[in-house]
Amino acid sequence: MTLVESMNPRTGEPAGAGVSETPPAELNSTLSLAKSAAKRFATESLSGRIALLRAIAKKLDDRADELIPLADSETGLGKARLTSEIARTTGQLRHFAEVIEEGSFLEATIDTPAPNGKPVPRPDLRRQLEPLGPVLVYAASNFPFAFSIAGGDTASALAAGCPVVVKAHEGHPELSRRTGEIISSVVADQNLPAGVFTVIFGQSAGRDAVVDQRIRAAGFTGSTTGGRALFDLATGRVDPIPFYGELGSINPTVVTRAATRARGSDIATEFVNSFTMGTGQFCTKPGLLFLPVGHNLESALAEAVSAVPAAPMLNNRIAESYAQISAEISAHPSVRSLISPRLHTEPGAWGVPSLFVTSAENFTEAADRLAEECFGPSSLIVEYASTHELINALQSIEGSLTATIHGEQSDVQAMAPVLDVLRPRAGRLIWNGWPTGVAVSWAMQHGGPWPSSTNPLHTSVGATAVRRWMRPVTYQAFPHDLLPEALQDGNPLGIPRRVDGAMRR
Amino acid sequence: MTLVESMNPRTGEPAGAGVSETPPAELNSTLSLAKSAAKRFATESLSGRIALLRAIAKKLDDRADELIPLADSETGLGKARLTSEIARTTGQLRHFAEVIEEGSFLEATIDTPAPNGKPVPRPDLRRQLEPLGPVLVYAASNFPFAFSIAGGDTASALAAGCPVVVKAHEGHPELSRRTGEIISSVVADQNLPAGVFTVIFGQSAGRDAVVDQRIRAAGFTGSTTGGRALFDLATGRVDPIPFYGELGSINPTVVTRAATRARGSDIATEFVNSFTMGTGQFCTKPGLLFLPVGHNLESALAEAVSAVPAAPMLNNRIAESYAQISAEISAHPSVRSLISPRLHTEPGAWGVPSLFVTSAENFTEAADRLAEECFGPSSLIVEYASTHELINALQSIEGSLTATIHGEQSDVQAMAPVLDVLRPRAGRLIWNGWPTGVAVSWAMQHGGPWPSSTNPLHTSVGATAVRRWMRPVTYQAFPHDLLPEALQDGNPLGIPRRVDGAMRR
Repeated sequence: MTLVESMNPRTGEPAGAGVSETPPAELNSTLSLAKSAAKRFATESLSGRIALLRAIAKKLDDRADELIPLADSETGLGKARLTSEIARTTGQLRHFAEVIEEGSFLEATIDTPAPNGKPVPRPDLRRQLEPLGPVLVYAASNFPFAFSIAGGDTASALAAGCPVVVKAHEGHPELSRRTGEIISSVVADQNLPAGVFTVIFGQSAGRDAVVDQRIRAAGFTGSTTGGRALFDLATGRVDPIPFYGELGSINPTVVTRAATRARGSDIATEFVNSFTMGTGQFCTKPGLLFLPVGHNLESALAEAVSAVPAAPMLNNRIAESYAQISAEISAHPSVRSLISPRLHTEPGAWGVPSLFVTSAENFTEAADRLAEECFGPSSLIVEYASTHELINALQSIEGSLTATIHGEQSDVQAMAPVLDVLRPRAGRLIWNGWPTGVAVSWAMQHGGPWPSSTNPLHTSVGATAVRRWMRPVTYQAFPHDLLPEALQDGNPLGIPRRVDGAMRR
Repeated sequence: MTLVESMNPRTGEPAGAGVSETPPAELNSTLSLAKSAAKRFATESLSGRIALLRAIAKKLDDRADELIPLADSETGLGKARLTSEIARTTGQLRHFAEVIEEGSFLEATIDTPAPNGKPVPRPDLRRQLEPLGPVLVYAASNFPFAFSIAGGDTASALAAGCPVVVKAHEGHPELSRRTGEIISSVVADQNLPAGVFTVIFGQSAGRDAVVDQRIRAAGFTGSTTGGRALFDLATGRVDPIPFYGELGSINPTVVTRAATRARGSDIATEFVNSFTMGTGQFCTKPGLLFLPVGHNLESALAEAVSAVPAAPMLNNRIAESYAQISAEISAHPSVRSLISPRLHTEPGAWGVPSLFVTSAENFTEAADRLAEECFGPSSLIVEYASTHELINALQSIEGSLTATIHGEQSDVQAMAPVLDVLRPRAGRLIWNGWPTGVAVSWAMQHGGPWPSSTNPLHTSVGATAVRRWMRPVTYQAFPHDLLPEALQDGNPLGIPRRVDGAMRR
């Protein structure tokens, strides 16, 4: 039986005994379990779903002392970061419980009959969102809690009432197995069928599952290449399914001349902190920093980068890819290395920060190469001589999760045309902040135009992430006893509903 | 220059001089106009968009006397139906104006800062939906107003703030050109750029447009084959775009034994009326009627069908396809013809109603063939001996726009398991009604699981159809002067907003 084996990136040694890949027969029974659990779970009361999410959150918090060292041994992300990430993950589960509790996510809508409607009478119509069925989640490597087994896709799909099959990431199989066991034990505690939550292992199982008729939607966080291949499988099915991929992102960050003048050295420090955080393995890493020509920050930047020690990367493949891509950028004729890429020769998978500079003009010409995501602790400074040059350069960038402006109050008006170029290119626009750090809240948007995601209408973080796993169903002139609770007269669930066009509770 | 030429289906004679196909150079300039109009239109005030939709509705109503005969000469749908359809179409434009006025469609959401947030502080976050950019709409043949140039996709995309490029249907080019001219004149009257609305002609232009980078989403109403081919082009792009196809639908209708007993002959009459309405050319046509064995309605049904005269179909291709598919069903070994398909030998494209019968058992076995949509005035009666047989048969059906139950009050409890089979298979569930007739309202859902649509999360009719053309954008810690109006302090637009999780106005 083939094993999924992880490595301790600090040492290069195996991080555990490995986990068996899910063989086809087991995958088949897993998917059947998920399918048969779907009907039962869809009719689970909202309070049952809330209890499930809160119980998972509690048990993960309770087991943090066991899970954090396990995660650290497989990812090398360090105790501080992982402690914060597990809190974010359980906070996210609890946030989705609140979203269910509030009730708007059902989009309950009632049109009372209009027997004299023109041109035709209108019957009683009642609409709500209902769960799509079993959801396949592809775990990411870079957030072993927040975008993995118990991450946002899992939490939002469970909140929607869909069974979840998570394909574990190859980078942290032991943690995945253990996290999965914990969630499954909570599912059992809550008297829900085991098929409500399962974990599968191995790329072959992951590919087979996305084309299986029992899977009704899929979520993915990872590379553009990997996500695109799975997106093509999902949309190429005889019965295509929604596929929500959160892929690569370059996250352009613009600094105005006034901001450079007012607080250039703070910006330099914060920038280096942001792009090297988590060894640069954030999908929101600022990969491009636009600075005005004559910014005078080179030495501050170089000093800050030099002060960042080599740090473990998630695995060998990522470390090698980072080394290769950063070397390519460094060798690009239009690029000068402020801090050249260096190899770390000790065992394990280590990444050393690097930083590059180019001009806006050169960047615009070579954007197909220079505006591509380099996963790891490096970034590219693009020097612009005028707003015209800046705008030209920004126009050569594809879709991104985020776009940021650092400006002073005096810049606000002048930044309007720059914002006009950034707005169609990003899902989240940031003023005087850094894109790393994605709050879990009602107003968050984590997703953007291609290639940052496969569908710009959706988010993988925040309250509305639930909507990806639900579809509208309208009941026309239905007997009251057959209506779902959310649509019954008297609003027994006490949720916000739209009645004849107006919101009511 | 190749012409798109229509035929009068009543006579087989040309219905007009024909309209030139859009050559590649003209398509290119059309798409550039749409792209450059997108930015201007996206920042048009909501009142400007409302005025546009209402002015289009008014002008189409004003020109009804010109448009209806033109539509009739190209589609043969008759004056009464077309009069009602134009009213539905202009009512739909006005409905979307109301949707904009109400303001919820922007989904304005504000999270105030939480500087002491755990595990990390939360910045000020403000989210709204923004237009995606130029939308490509493929007009349908069967609703020359309501699902064509000025139809629901166009109305909802304009409401969303997206420029629209409509690919005219080959079946009614003269009407399409004229309707397009009327809309374009209103766009000019409203001082909006011409690129806000354009019409293109010819299948080649239609295929080229969907893979063009300037098009950001597409809507389609038509056949499963045609829609699937365009869906594959849209999702296969280097930069995939959302493609909303409303495709084929069989619309199963179940009649209980008690309903058959109580009002069988009314049901028979209403059923025949529903499946022959518009010569059976509705995507919501009831293509399957499940009757209990021993229903005793054969003669009533046969009589009702015989009383429906031959009627023009939309064009030769559809008439020929109807003749062929109904002949195939008639020849199927499991099927008996209650009213055999007959050819109408006079010139033009005529359809004669037909009706078939099979058993639930045979249906279940041959569902891959018998549960396929036959576009035209025919339907299949499936006789079931037990609820078990009924459920088995229903389980063999794919996704549909609608599913209907005719039952008595005494059936309500017994129908719960039948509803459980229908619910995952349909977007709209109907009790004691007929699926033909789709109200334009807040609670409508027109869309369903594959193959009835390419994306079950969305509707092509009703208020939420707007959402297909919008994507969320979050503004983080933004200067007030750069925030969109909908997200500014004090709620200057006076729209419903979610603030820190709670709905407010």
